Amino acid sequence: MAAEGDRIFVGKIVVGTDPNEELTKNDWAIVVDSHGIIKASGSSEHILSRFDGEIVKLGPYSILMPGFIDAHLHAPQFGNIGTHQDLPLLDWLTNYTFPIESKFSDKNFSEKMNAAVVRSTLSRGTTTACYFGTIYKDDAVALATQCAEQGQRAYVGKVNMDINPLATYYLEKSAESVVDTAWAAREIRGLGNSLVEPIITPRFAPSCSVSLMQSLGKMAKEQDMAIQTHISENEGEIQLMKERFPNDGYLDVYEKNGLVSDRCLLAHSIYLTESEKKKMAEKGASIVHCPDSNFALMSGVLDHQSATEANINVALGTDVAGGASASMVDAMRYAELASKINTINQKQTTSYLNFKKPFIYGTLNGAKALKIDDKTGSLEVGKEFDAVIADVSASLEPVFLDNDSPDELLERFVHCSDPRSITNVFVRGKQVFSS
Amino acid sequence: MAAEGDRIFVGKIVVGTDPNEELTKNDWAIVVDSHGIIKASGSSEHILSRFDGEIVKLGPYSILMPGFIDAHLHAPQFGNIGTHQDLPLLDWLTNYTFPIESKFSDKNFSEKMNAAVVRSTLSRGTTTACYFGTIYKDDAVALATQCAEQGQRAYVGKVNMDINPLATYYLEKSAESVVDTAWAAREIRGLGNSLVEPIITPRFAPSCSVSLMQSLGKMAKEQDMAIQTHISENEGEIQLMKERFPNDGYLDVYEKNGLVSDRCLLAHSIYLTESEKKKMAEKGASIVHCPDSNFALMSGVLDHQSATEANINVALGTDVAGGASASMVDAMRYAELASKINTINQKQTTSYLNFKKPFIYGTLNGAKALKIDDKTGSLEVGKEFDAVIADVSASLEPVFLDNDSPDELLERFVHCSDPRSITNVFVRGKQVFSS
Repeated sequence: MAAEGDRIFVGKIVVGTDPNEELTKNDWAIVVDSHGIIKASGSSEHILSRFDGEIVKLGPYSILMPGFIDAHLHAPQFGNIGTHQDLPLLDWLTNYTFPIESKFSDKNFSEKMNAAVVRSTLSRGTTTACYFGTIYKDDAVALATQCAEQGQRAYVGKVNMDINPLATYYLEKSAESVVDTAWAAREIRGLGNSLVEPIITPRFAPSCSVSLMQSLGKMAKEQDMAIQTHISENEGEIQLMKERFPNDGYLDVYEKNGLVSDRCLLAHSIYLTESEKKKMAEKGASIVHCPDSNFALMSGVLDHQSATEANINVALGTDVAGGASASMVDAMRYAELASKINTINQKQTTSYLNFKKPFIYGTLNGAKALKIDDKTGSLEVGKEFDAVIADVSASLEPVFLDNDSPDELLERFVHCSDPRSITNVFVRGKQVFSS
Repeated sequence: MAAEGDRIFVGKIVVGTDPNEELTKNDWAIVVDSHGIIKASGSSEHILSRFDGEIVKLGPYSILMPGFIDAHLHAPQFGNIGTHQDLPLLDWLTNYTFPIESKFSDKNFSEKMNAAVVRSTLSRGTTTACYFGTIYKDDAVALATQCAEQGQRAYVGKVNMDINPLATYYLEKSAESVVDTAWAAREIRGLGNSLVEPIITPRFAPSCSVSLMQSLGKMAKEQDMAIQTHISENEGEIQLMKERFPNDGYLDVYEKNGLVSDRCLLAHSIYLTESEKKKMAEKGASIVHCPDSNFALMSGVLDHQSATEANINVALGTDVAGGASASMVDAMRYAELASKINTINQKQTTSYLNFKKPFIYGTLNGAKALKIDDKTGSLEVGKEFDAVIADVSASLEPVFLDNDSPDELLERFVHCSDPRSITNVFVRGKQVFSS
């Protein structure tokens, strides 16, 4: 079978999706059609005898894998990336974060920075990103425009906050916040790029009035939008919530206002109670684990095991600039590290992770959180080709790799590659980055 | 003043050595003479009006800094880098580490791998490395030869182990171990390269007989050699020691056998008792903190604060392949992370580190551990020019960096640069790597 514009990728390919099984197949082949859809997958012998097309042969140390899904990051914080990580959450917001976010009212600054943000994440293999923007509607549109132009699949959220005692200069009026959110959503859809969508983005309950949350919950439902926010990241934040809502749990506040759906991404979720975990699982909402940030701001360490046992889907985020790395590979590494910290602390547990589960967190589980796992998150037939080619030998001397099984090569990629290894990035079949 | 072969490096330069003060100076200049010695340092205005020479002007996002001192790593484990990190120490040694180390009895394999190891570390800015080799004397010489040829300052240790119930195929006879160590030391000195020295390297007390340790202690004293070994890394290992030496503490065993000097580098040191800390400080021995490895093998988390309070010098190591990264920049990052984990765990402490102390751990403190801080570890007048030029904009979009102070740029380098940022590496004035 031959069709105009088909490409056949041949070599080591991550086709597995079960972290308890082999993820990477040797001598595999995937056929991608001219619309960017994966139309066949199988042993290279099988595929090459049945399909014609432009053959893309991977190098001996290269792996084709699903693109990464960064399920939580803040575009306007990239200017602070790797600096200002010496304070816990609320002080960090006050001293470093609100000041930089407030600069995005400047259109030129917003455009310049957002362009650089999308370049940064794409070049690290992030094919889908769930961005928090700022409170400025134009900034959200500028970010979405960059995603569309550079070809990244993205969810772009204008941030809502009508309460902010920490920085009164960075605050919206309630009604305006709702109107601006609706406007930004229309404008983003108006870009006419089916890869880029608006997402409802209340910063977190402490910064939102109940009426604002209600309006946002209503909008999410009426316009069938995904929702992202923060929960239970830090003990100071939780204390704030207890004072403001003495009769409700943190998750209750979101739920009562229509903000906990099966397309709801709740970043951090470190200090969830057992009943909150149960509720999240019932609702089909996802945890976005952000270990880099959780370490840097000394927020705490997610107990991934109890989240998994509660049947909650766990996705992964870089949480720049709480996290210092825009690389989802680093996020995977830190997720494994977080699990090992739990093992060190609790002694008795042996539930620490190897590289496989974090890899699934950062790919398929991100797609599941957004309910786009029919389109992306793995390299399965019928899905769109969101993919990364990684040459591990660009980071490590080839002689170290010579006896690797395909999964060992993937393990090295996760554990100790650097961005030099990301050689090609594709979204819906289109190459959006090459080194 | 002009002298043949002088170079003047001009730009942002890390000249500070006090982590409580500014480390990086703007518009600074350093004069390096043809022997690789730093002969002057001052504001660029001051220096350029007084010295002639080839001017090396750093780019706007580049920093000249002291080269990194990796005070603990295992050359023969690089073949396992980034894999096999799913078991605690003793099982890890048995299943993964002894098997790969035993391959270095093969001369061709040893030469090929050691060449790649030195390339790997040099290209990441490690100007001084304290290597553990294998039990094979020829392998130690092959490694030292590579260091000499590639221009790295190095301490190369033939490993001693005459007890090894975990892997009987990887074991020496006691007398042979001593003779081979003396032979390797002679051969290494015979290379005639003053940058490369042998170092006494009992693997750790559980793998050494008392008579072997005594002989090694004697050799260290007679030949004025530095000593490196492991201590108190893991609770299983400590239990082993208690069973074998019920009447002595772990450090006592080393001390009684002449192995605790002021040039003794004790890797890990996580579970030292208070009296052991006191003893180490008295003896002037150093801790080599290896956080990457300590996390990966779930060994524990060093309490850097109590080590510092006990006046023990803390150096830093990658501990490849317990650690997955050959980069001392990652080691610095993980040292900060370890301190933050302690803060998360203990709640009350506010002693977490920023980037500065780990930077000093990985440079000047390594030199102090080896008592070569008159020669290297910082860019001070009279020292040899062991240095790295790092272009932070090779890792991060320049627009993110535009308002950085020199120390903020250094902070970004430590927190989120990748190896692309290492553009030039010098040892004793000679460029040994450029990207």
